[in-house]
Amino acid sequence: MNLGMPPSKIANTMIEFEHMKKISRTSPSKIVFLIIDGVGGLPHPETGKTELESARKPNLNRIARDSLCGLIDPISPGITPGSAPGHLAIFGYDPVKYNIGRGVVEALGIDLELKPEDITARGNFCTVDNKGIIIDRRAGRVSTDKSTELCRSLNNIAINGAEISVLPVKEHRFVLILRGEALSPELADSDPQQAGLAPKKIEALSPQAQRTAEIVNNFVSQASIRLQYEPAANMVLLRGFSRRPDIPSIPEIYKLKPAVIAIYPMYRGLAKLVGMQVLPGGESITEQLNSLRRYYADYDFFFVHFKSTDARGEDGNFRAKVQAIEELDNALPSLLSLDPEVLIITGDHSTPATLAMHSWHPVPFMLKSKWCRPDNVTEFSEKACLAGGMGRFPATEIMPLAMANALKLDKFGA
Amino acid sequence: MNLGMPPSKIANTMIEFEHMKKISRTSPSKIVFLIIDGVGGLPHPETGKTELESARKPNLNRIARDSLCGLIDPISPGITPGSAPGHLAIFGYDPVKYNIGRGVVEALGIDLELKPEDITARGNFCTVDNKGIIIDRRAGRVSTDKSTELCRSLNNIAINGAEISVLPVKEHRFVLILRGEALSPELADSDPQQAGLAPKKIEALSPQAQRTAEIVNNFVSQASIRLQYEPAANMVLLRGFSRRPDIPSIPEIYKLKPAVIAIYPMYRGLAKLVGMQVLPGGESITEQLNSLRRYYADYDFFFVHFKSTDARGEDGNFRAKVQAIEELDNALPSLLSLDPEVLIITGDHSTPATLAMHSWHPVPFMLKSKWCRPDNVTEFSEKACLAGGMGRFPATEIMPLAMANALKLDKFGA
Repeated sequence: MNLGMPPSKIANTMIEFEHMKKISRTSPSKIVFLIIDGVGGLPHPETGKTELESARKPNLNRIARDSLCGLIDPISPGITPGSAPGHLAIFGYDPVKYNIGRGVVEALGIDLELKPEDITARGNFCTVDNKGIIIDRRAGRVSTDKSTELCRSLNNIAINGAEISVLPVKEHRFVLILRGEALSPELADSDPQQAGLAPKKIEALSPQAQRTAEIVNNFVSQASIRLQYEPAANMVLLRGFSRRPDIPSIPEIYKLKPAVIAIYPMYRGLAKLVGMQVLPGGESITEQLNSLRRYYADYDFFFVHFKSTDARGEDGNFRAKVQAIEELDNALPSLLSLDPEVLIITGDHSTPATLAMHSWHPVPFMLKSKWCRPDNVTEFSEKACLAGGMGRFPATEIMPLAMANALKLDKFGA
Repeated sequence: MNLGMPPSKIANTMIEFEHMKKISRTSPSKIVFLIIDGVGGLPHPETGKTELESARKPNLNRIARDSLCGLIDPISPGITPGSAPGHLAIFGYDPVKYNIGRGVVEALGIDLELKPEDITARGNFCTVDNKGIIIDRRAGRVSTDKSTELCRSLNNIAINGAEISVLPVKEHRFVLILRGEALSPELADSDPQQAGLAPKKIEALSPQAQRTAEIVNNFVSQASIRLQYEPAANMVLLRGFSRRPDIPSIPEIYKLKPAVIAIYPMYRGLAKLVGMQVLPGGESITEQLNSLRRYYADYDFFFVHFKSTDARGEDGNFRAKVQAIEELDNALPSLLSLDPEVLIITGDHSTPATLAMHSWHPVPFMLKSKWCRPDNVTEFSEKACLAGGMGRFPATEIMPLAMANALKLDKFGA
């Protein structure tokens, strides 16, 4: 997304993918994407060094020496990506065109299989006073056990015209799923996003969504009756009504046989959405890389997701993020010994520990292959990668680069 | 063509602004844009140094050291911007989509308030011979006093269907304004842009403009009668028929409260067009920065326009342009002491003194903020900024960057 502006580049993704489909070909070469979530950072005020610059990471640096390096903009300069658009861009999808709703992301996060027509929403249990005014949007962060019990009760609500599912996520969070004929996700949130107000009635944003709005309002009023004697979780809030996007798959566009190895369900769900097979992830990067080795012969594209850099960045814990980078670096020899034809290491966005949140800063990138034309970069860091052969570039250009370096693309034009 | 893909950039600006509207939020942080008109230059043939490289500018260099630097393309490589598109791009508008007509720019330049339906044209007094052939397109650069007197006379011309205003600009230049129902700016110029030809009859470029063409031709023939005994200014030429563009405002898109501090009316007019409040500018950069200080609490976005770099560049006076840069640098401590959360210093285009005109060369850019991730640049100049963290980039990406660094943007997507 260039929120300001226009395109030196062409907007029509479908046309773009048409070209890619024509020139992509299958071959035995392997492509591995190692995505270090939130890896980009900002200088520590005392040392002037970022997390990457502070970490001892001999393996990452050795790879940088043999790689084509750069800095990616997941969406466009200044725009901070959520996890879904950050990854979709890396997989070659225009993250603005294929924007995935909150409800869908939440459903992916609990490993739900969504049908194309399912409508999903993110739900919160909340506390309202006796006039119906919200006093706590998170119902005192009700326990997951309690919330699971409440979801079971709401899951029994029956409404004509839609099959209702209510599934717990964690603490006050749940997912609502509507399945039925001719439903529409074009609904406004009921969640006013602040206490002191009443939950809003769900409104249809288009005439076709009228009936769905009635169904959801009916659900909310039945839910409020079932919850009325609860001390904290006595009401629900809904937001981010959405449907699984109709997204061309990676096998279809690139003729690849892709697989994902991720510990967190959301990333597995996102990968499934673009046609990847889910492989066992285990509970650590070492186990993930063992899984990679085990299934290495069976696929030609692997997405390995490393989470803790982002988690420690969001905690605002600079030192712990540095340690997460070092932990990853330690595990790398196992991956390097597989010697994939194309190895790409980058992140889906920056999560500077000093900001303690996702940020808009571009993300270090490197691509190692026999054919990559290495540059002069000898370190995997923000400043060093800026001087790399790719300079600063949109993340959506990664997939064609990966395909080219794997010798899986025919030339374009006569 | 980007074969892989899509655009991190999308063509539809309205959709883009829709996203920006959704993620923008108000906060107390301040954003200051200091636009040094025509600041980019070319090497002096004797020293090999550009105007910026020749100037003593310790403050600009000190800011560069703490900043994210780069080089902007106001429109795109090779394209020389007029003042209007150069500034519109910096303010986040596609300068091709929001192209502002010559007539409107001329009207803004004399501080006119245009209504959305007003049609404006740039006028020249000219000299024609007794066969009606143009012998001087500028009527011997008739004096502004004389031209003011002639405009007063033409201003009285009455035509059914439109209220006519004729207002002097400077020397032979004037502005024609038509106000009325169902008028259209889709008219060809009467000005053939060279002597030796007769002024052209105004032609409608669409059927809806037919009546407006008749009104303007009627005006031209009445004007020629009123001017017939003038020794020099005995005819008028018209060009650039246009209407104020329907442009989404900065407050509307970014939820900012913006203000402009400019000495020249055209820049104030342009800023008003995008929703900025006009503050007193005084007659020097020192007075402009005093005004900034005085109104600092009342707005959260300031556009300070420094003109003389461009004027000296257009004069072809290398030394004087260097001095203008030094004058600006001297005034900067007053701005720096305000310590705005985001300070951006750049220009709307280059005006190399060796070329003595606006040029297509990219323009040095720097952004200073607590969160900017500084690069290795230690000097504010064309060559130094090329190695900056932004590299070379479209000017339309500046606004999202400014908003992000001011922590005025929510993340995009779940």
